[in-house]
Amino acid sequence: MADKVPSIVETATRLARETLAPRAAWYDRDGVNPVESWRDLHRERLLAIGIPTAYGGEGLDMAAYVAVIRALARGCANTAMISLSRTLLMETAIREAGEGWAVDGVKHFCTMALGASQYMVWCALDGESDMGKALVLALVPADADGITTDGKWNTLGMRGTYSPSVTFSGVWIPREAALGRPGSAIQVGVVESFGLGYAAIYLGIADAALDFAIDYAKKRVVKPENIAVAQDPTVQRHIGGLAVRLDAARLVLEDSAARWESAEIAERGNLANKAKFLATETSLEVTSKVIQVVGGRGAYKDYPAERAFRDVRTATLMPPTVDRMLETIGKAALGIQEGMFRIGGGPQGA
Amino acid sequence: MADKVPSIVETATRLARETLAPRAAWYDRDGVNPVESWRDLHRERLLAIGIPTAYGGEGLDMAAYVAVIRALARGCANTAMISLSRTLLMETAIREAGEGWAVDGVKHFCTMALGASQYMVWCALDGESDMGKALVLALVPADADGITTDGKWNTLGMRGTYSPSVTFSGVWIPREAALGRPGSAIQVGVVESFGLGYAAIYLGIADAALDFAIDYAKKRVVKPENIAVAQDPTVQRHIGGLAVRLDAARLVLEDSAARWESAEIAERGNLANKAKFLATETSLEVTSKVIQVVGGRGAYKDYPAERAFRDVRTATLMPPTVDRMLETIGKAALGIQEGMFRIGGGPQGA
Amino acid sequence: MADKVPSIVETATRLARETLAPRAAWYDRDGVNPVESWRDLHRERLLAIGIPTAYGGEGLDMAAYVAVIRALARGCANTAMISLSRTLLMETAIREAGEGWAVDGVKHFCTMALGASQYMVWCALDGESDMGKALVLALVPADADGITTDGKWNTLGMRGTYSPSVTFSGVWIPREAALGRPGSAIQVGVVESFGLGYAAIYLGIADAALDFAIDYAKKRVVKPENIAVAQDPTVQRHIGGLAVRLDAARLVLEDSAARWESAEIAERGNLANKAKFLATETSLEVTSKVIQVVGGRGAYKDYPAERAFRDVRTATLMPPTVDRMLETIGKAALGIQEGMFRIGGGPQGA
Amino acid sequence: MADKVPSIVETATRLARETLAPRAAWYDRDGVNPVESWRDLHRERLLAIGIPTAYGGEGLDMAAYVAVIRALARGCANTAMISLSRTLLMETAIREAGEGWAVDGVKHFCTMALGASQYMVWCALDGESDMGKALVLALVPADADGITTDGKWNTLGMRGTYSPSVTFSGVWIPREAALGRPGSAIQVGVVESFGLGYAAIYLGIADAALDFAIDYAKKRVVKPENIAVAQDPTVQRHIGGLAVRLDAARLVLEDSAARWESAEIAERGNLANKAKFLATETSLEVTSKVIQVVGGRGAYKDYPAERAFRDVRTATLMPPTVDRMLETIGKAALGIQEGMFRIGGGPQGA
Repeated sequence: MADKVPSIVETATRLARETLAPRAAWYDRDGVNPVESWRDLHRERLLAIGIPTAYGGEGLDMAAYVAVIRALARGCANTAMISLSRTLLMETAIREAGEGWAVDGVKHFCTMALGASQYMVWCALDGESDMGKALVLALVPADADGITTDGKWNTLGMRGTYSPSVTFSGVWIPREAALGRPGSAIQVGVVESFGLGYAAIYLGIADAALDFAIDYAKKRVVKPENIAVAQDPTVQRHIGGLAVRLDAARLVLEDSAARWESAEIAERGNLANKAKFLATETSLEVTSKVIQVVGGRGAYKDYPAERAFRDVRTATLMPPTVDRMLETIGKAALGIQEGMFRIGGGPQGA
Repeated sequence: MADKVPSIVETATRLARETLAPRAAWYDRDGVNPVESWRDLHRERLLAIGIPTAYGGEGLDMAAYVAVIRALARGCANTAMISLSRTLLMETAIREAGEGWAVDGVKHFCTMALGASQYMVWCALDGESDMGKALVLALVPADADGITTDGKWNTLGMRGTYSPSVTFSGVWIPREAALGRPGSAIQVGVVESFGLGYAAIYLGIADAALDFAIDYAKKRVVKPENIAVAQDPTVQRHIGGLAVRLDAARLVLEDSAARWESAEIAERGNLANKAKFLATETSLEVTSKVIQVVGGRGAYKDYPAERAFRDVRTATLMPPTVDRMLETIGKAALGIQEGMFRIGGGPQGA
Repeated sequence: MADKVPSIVETATRLARETLAPRAAWYDRDGVNPVESWRDLHRERLLAIGIPTAYGGEGLDMAAYVAVIRALARGCANTAMISLSRTLLMETAIREAGEGWAVDGVKHFCTMALGASQYMVWCALDGESDMGKALVLALVPADADGITTDGKWNTLGMRGTYSPSVTFSGVWIPREAALGRPGSAIQVGVVESFGLGYAAIYLGIADAALDFAIDYAKKRVVKPENIAVAQDPTVQRHIGGLAVRLDAARLVLEDSAARWESAEIAERGNLANKAKFLATETSLEVTSKVIQVVGGRGAYKDYPAERAFRDVRTATLMPPTVDRMLETIGKAALGIQEGMFRIGGGPQGA
Repeated sequence: MADKVPSIVETATRLARETLAPRAAWYDRDGVNPVESWRDLHRERLLAIGIPTAYGGEGLDMAAYVAVIRALARGCANTAMISLSRTLLMETAIREAGEGWAVDGVKHFCTMALGASQYMVWCALDGESDMGKALVLALVPADADGITTDGKWNTLGMRGTYSPSVTFSGVWIPREAALGRPGSAIQVGVVESFGLGYAAIYLGIADAALDFAIDYAKKRVVKPENIAVAQDPTVQRHIGGLAVRLDAARLVLEDSAARWESAEIAERGNLANKAKFLATETSLEVTSKVIQVVGGRGAYKDYPAERAFRDVRTATLMPPTVDRMLETIGKAALGIQEGMFRIGGGPQGA
């Protein structure tokens, strides 16, 4: 393990720079899934890292996992997001039906599961209000009866994740298509771990945006003074403010990841929310200010800053909401135990 | 005049809603100038309001002017921006050349002047460092010798303003194509007045975004509770925060406009910067938070929120920069007199 | 009226500068009520402005009222606060008892009423949950039976308001000591008007702090450069940011006051909350940043900045809380009608 | 060393809670040096930790040093600050004079050195503009000829540090009273290390304030609902926001301390500024919001929140200023090398 980690992060970093980044603008423009980049990830055995160890994935620990996700997001946020491949917001219910299950409801932001032949759907077990017992992860074949999709995915950012809303009307799936027993995902902390993955993506995008601004400020020369933008004290202060906040958000993410394995489930919700909250706030600020510092060119599609700005604003809509995260963090600080989320978590993200 | 003002604002409001808004997504998508909307403005005599009274425009006072611009921006920011039709950042110089002038340099964000046959170019008189004497507004025929353009305008937002960089290499223009005597624009406050126009556009876009969020929150019902999003106290607080800030920014803009006519030139710079600074900060916050409040749908291109988010981030790059505005406002508060801008105002907006 | 307003504001401004300001540090240090300054206010007929017109006060309109309060607060926040003389947070109930009423409960921040012989106590009518019918303003003689006070008032700021907690245990008062019929205060908007008064005080304190910083920056010379602090661009930007925010908060307060007389009760809550919210946020920022800009001397008790910092942090604890204000403003923006406050408004301010 | 660290932090934590905290309000009220607490520190061998290893101190590494300082500051900020015992802002020059040196100028915030018999004064070597060669640390006997002090120290906060301005007029000191050779302090990074110490103090104060708010929220019950304040979701969100920011600032401080020993001098400036900047911003927010969350009682002198609020606003005035820190951090991010400070660092902190 000790050898595997740096090596896998290095692989992800190299792949992001050499393979993912050059294609990123193209997936964004056309709004298509980054299929070629998935294949590259698959070839390098990086796609399976998105599968939690509990379900037979690569078995990376959380620190390595978030480092890889963040490295990938620096090159292409869409590819990194797909490698997470899971969303939370549910208006779907599952109930026993004959030898199997029936799934009903709408799944928003429905990204295809690996291989693009199945949907991964989190469902609430009908009639069970305790999420610790209700949550079921179902794999639904994309060609099952009763599935309709609006096919729409024309968005501000994260355009390559192509995640339309999918409606399930009494879709029957066999018993084994519901992974684990009801609630087990919550009990092993699968759900909570998404927050760290999202945080890694937000920070990866922000890293790339800040790197661009720094590079631009060093190379761009202003007339008539003929000095680099980087010499302007107001630019230095803006860059300084962004750099230190990004450092702080990264340290919180790394700290949460380092504490993950030994943390209890309730504490994992807190760790995930701390990382995701700060990554949300920080990446929104960084990607907006980078455009301000760069100026007009920051808004050109020739440069990556404007895509980062759109991707972060879109990706940070993933639940739980900012208010919900703060509430959970506050409860932990106040010694009030609670799981990370509840059904019907409010309008945001809906 | 007293009768004319409400009438012209009403006309602009009606036009924005009925004619400009329905076309706005289309100009944005294709990145083309809103020619049809210009024609509508021309027909309603609203295009000429962009011409300062000193140069023979409609003769609206500043209060009416900003109200009209803001009303137009609620429907289509690109159309409103074009009706301002002027930018500040210069790397262009003008010098006497025979019977006329020669223009050299690059004009960034070069929007065509009225009629699309001339460029309106602010130049610095060669060898004159005092901007009060150096600033010249030149009308350069688009087909003059020595003009090249990169033709590029593929941007995050304000995509309909199509404003490529244009390079002038010793372009000769006749004497009368330089409007006023050198520096006169600064002396009558033309330059300063741009700030109020920009502020009006930023707030018009933010108005439209907040209206959308309010409408959405009232109509969208959350399951399983079956209550409107508007009933959620956290949503109420977010909307409340945005509403009160937008109110404040609007009051500052209206206050600056009301004081305009009787203000001296130096004070006009302060009035414009106060309005533009607060409109910048507020519109950036409103358009980002509206997406957060609306959630996933806020990022869909079917709804206007994501365009507002892109347009504001782009439009607020217009000089002067945030740092420069604060500096000027601070100088005024400290009793240090100074004009609104200087040549080579830094990297932002470059 | 038209003549009276400027005259009364001028009187307040003069009094604040000449009489109130020189005593302000002393009341603060010793934590005693500003009795001498009250007498001066009384002499100039400025004390009665705190009495709403509905109860026979001076009959100033709201615009003049807030202008006077703000002018007084520039000189001495304690004196200005006392001239409001009312607080909202209640844990007191009133019930009919024989020929009169009995009052029970605790009043926090209990400032003496005019003449220091009576407490002004807002009570909820026992058994009535609709505040529009429940709210009663009772004048309780300070020497009535059943009154105890902890006598404590040793606070961060607003030290001259000396407002200990007072406990009422079945205190009997005659029928006429309950002003108006139950709920009438809410119906005429008395309660809502407090918010504007508080906002005026916060902004008056912030005005004084910013004036001090400006004066300091102009006079203080830095070595070895021998230039005034005011020439430092970073200082200019900080001052500029504070000046424009203070302008905005003032314009919102003036706008709310101007709309007051013709507004319905529900709308008055919104007007008051907008003004008070922005004044809270702005005055906290201004008084903290002024110390930062001035530097070490800003923390010396020889200068007024540190008192402003303490007074604002204390005075802004007056209910409703920031969350409650935003909720109400949001409801108004969302078209959800509601009064301004409710009983048991939460822990803050408790 | 491995054993020493936890032990010394535990000692500091215990001492802070049992001995320092109970006296803290008293030193604050009377504005006197915390002599009794110094003695306790001396007895436990904690006073010498303030002496950098280069000058024969305890030899703690930076991680242990900041942990101890922060632990002490949780109990009494004044005591912790004194144990740093050094300030930066200089208007003092030193020149060779016969067999020794002559010191001229003013030292602001002049805290007595250990034993209260000497001033520790940072001086610039006369005629040397390169701080890497100019900075001299002089120990000046308090009873030397030519020393006058205004004796004033009546401040908002940090009242127990009693640090008046001291004026030196040609004060002669022997050669050995100037520690090290000129500039050596900068070369070993002594100066930069102050920033970490300050950051530790700011965060220690903020820790204590947040702990108080959490404790209050858990114990205080609101009527008529009879539920703890901690159950209020808005309180949870405020506490959550403060907790996560404080975590982030702490992680940045710990990260800077961990990197300290192996960092070059220029990088140390960056590490110190990142920690101090974030600690400044965070502690100002935490101590102000804690009062808001607690409400009226937060402003009472019976509780520690208001002292934390005053101490942080005062202590964070220590140079370098916020603008200067951001500039340095930005330069590091932009790859522009520079030492941490320069002479005449601007008006703030003056």
